[in-house]
Amino acid sequence: MKAVVKVTLRKGVLDPQGKAIGNALHSLGFAEVGDVRQGKFIEIEVPDGTSQDRLKDMCQKLLANPVTEDFEILMAG
Amino acid sequence: MKAVVKVTLRKGVLDPQGKAIGNALHSLGFAEVGDVRQGKFIEIEVPDGTSQDRLKDMCQKLLANPVTEDFEILMAG
Repeated sequence: MKAVVKVTLRKGVLDPQGKAIGNALHSLGFAEVGDVRQGKFIEIEVPDGTSQDRLKDMCQKLLANPVTEDFEILMAG
Repeated sequence: MKAVVKVTLRKGVLDPQGKAIGNALHSLGFAEVGDVRQGKFIEIEVPDGTSQDRLKDMCQKLLANPVTEDFEILMAG
């Protein structure tokens, strides 16, 4: 089974990488672009039946920084 | 309107960052974890009615490296 963890910066946390992407898009002529935010996702191959709690545990211990980041767990087939 | 661009490494391209995450999970006791791959996503605020083609253009010019990465465009409400 494949689990996908989406890690985003918390609202209110500055996102310099997103800002840089926005600026670069503007200078490439995409003037209509507004706010840009960047995040990451992690695809993890886990045995069938792995619980959400187990994945939450992985996120809290390693995958996300709880001070600045939020995470969301999506299970795939 | 918010558009989300998902950028993943192409199949067959080595993903050292994913590998490192996998190894770290193993040493934290998550022995059941198999393959791990990491990607990024970019949330872009664009005016309503922006076409897929316009977003594709952004991806090809800046957001994804066409040699090593694939991208996928998801439109949100």
